[in-house]
Amino acid sequence: MAEIRLIDIKEDILSDNQALAGQIRDALRNHRIFLMNLMASPGGGKTSLILQTLRRLKDKFRMAVIEGDIDSQVDAEKVIREDIPAVQIRTGGFCHLDASMIEMAFKELEMTALDAIIVENIGNLVCPAEFDIGATRNVMILSVPEGDDKPLKYPLMFSICDALVVNKTDYLEGSDFDLPVLRERVRKLNPDIRIFEVSCKTGQGIDAWTQWLAGEIKTVQNPSP
Amino acid sequence: MAEIRLIDIKEDILSDNQALAGQIRDALRNHRIFLMNLMASPGGGKTSLILQTLRRLKDKFRMAVIEGDIDSQVDAEKVIREDIPAVQIRTGGFCHLDASMIEMAFKELEMTALDAIIVENIGNLVCPAEFDIGATRNVMILSVPEGDDKPLKYPLMFSICDALVVNKTDYLEGSDFDLPVLRERVRKLNPDIRIFEVSCKTGQGIDAWTQWLAGEIKTVQNPSP
Repeated sequence: MAEIRLIDIKEDILSDNQALAGQIRDALRNHRIFLMNLMASPGGGKTSLILQTLRRLKDKFRMAVIEGDIDSQVDAEKVIREDIPAVQIRTGGFCHLDASMIEMAFKELEMTALDAIIVENIGNLVCPAEFDIGATRNVMILSVPEGDDKPLKYPLMFSICDALVVNKTDYLEGSDFDLPVLRERVRKLNPDIRIFEVSCKTGQGIDAWTQWLAGEIKTVQNPSP
Repeated sequence: MAEIRLIDIKEDILSDNQALAGQIRDALRNHRIFLMNLMASPGGGKTSLILQTLRRLKDKFRMAVIEGDIDSQVDAEKVIREDIPAVQIRTGGFCHLDASMIEMAFKELEMTALDAIIVENIGNLVCPAEFDIGATRNVMILSVPEGDDKPLKYPLMFSICDALVVNKTDYLEGSDFDLPVLRERVRKLNPDIRIFEVSCKTGQGIDAWTQWLAGEIKTVQNPSP
């Protein structure tokens, strides 16, 4: 009988992507540029957190934003109103950014004039977790209305992130969202993750978040020998 | 104010794909190999039509099948039971095949020993229509239970196909599927399309289909000077 030859597309794509992400990370380290990959569900508050962060850090660091969207550029328009350069990646239906898209976006930025770049990934807790983009730090947002059970449903995302921003804490009062339970679930997957509780609406907790981020950017600028 | 730089991923991908598909089509023509791209909704009867076709044509032509699936190889297993070589492309979630995947599959086949290759695309009436794979002929199946309104909903697929196989005609009796209305809707989009009415279950109409296909394969083998 004839035999079946098997080709696994996703495995091939993931390993190609991993190699390119490694090259991006090395190049950024050499040029002392910090890259943050921000991931969340749709409506979790990615753009709001980016705008709050830019307002607090843009006088300290030379920043830029890469906006990933399936089909629009409204988020990039908000970013440039802060007088920050923005690259809009329109994926046309793809549900995540990958390393090759980030490489394309770098070509549109004056990289030598930058200290830190924030990438707003596509709103999705699944695929972006699988595609390393070469970031210095992976950060995710979980917003209170999404519920405290998300670590059980999307364990990979919580596992690969260096920091978790719990957003919309202004919704905590009167909700059944259990912060201690959430923390326990997250730390079981990822004991070293940093957790910040913020409300982009009221501004509560944002300073602690941006202090941590500023520290991470400085570590890249002044690496220990 | 800063300006937005825009990168359109899908347009870039589609134009790269189109270039590679053109190269594949040229190479196949030079080697006198026929390539059919078979598309349909999930459950439309792609594998059944392929098996019926192989049984009628495998003694006349040296054939092979490339099976696209999101995650399994059950269809390829059916093909090799007909003693026909099969390559299984497992996309791991992607909803269509593209030219680069077909190029990878060719490397797993003994191309010089083949007259005709059938590609079973991923079950989907949307994305596969956008991605040229370099086929000699694009063929789609519409099965009667899907309804006669599909040309209105998926016009691109009906527009790019050289032949439409209306399958499961054994369901016509007592259904509200209107064949003349379907034909009219299809021809409005694509006046030159060939339409075959078959039942893979009863075998009705299959001979007319395979006669046409055999003629198309022969045209590639003996091109007019």
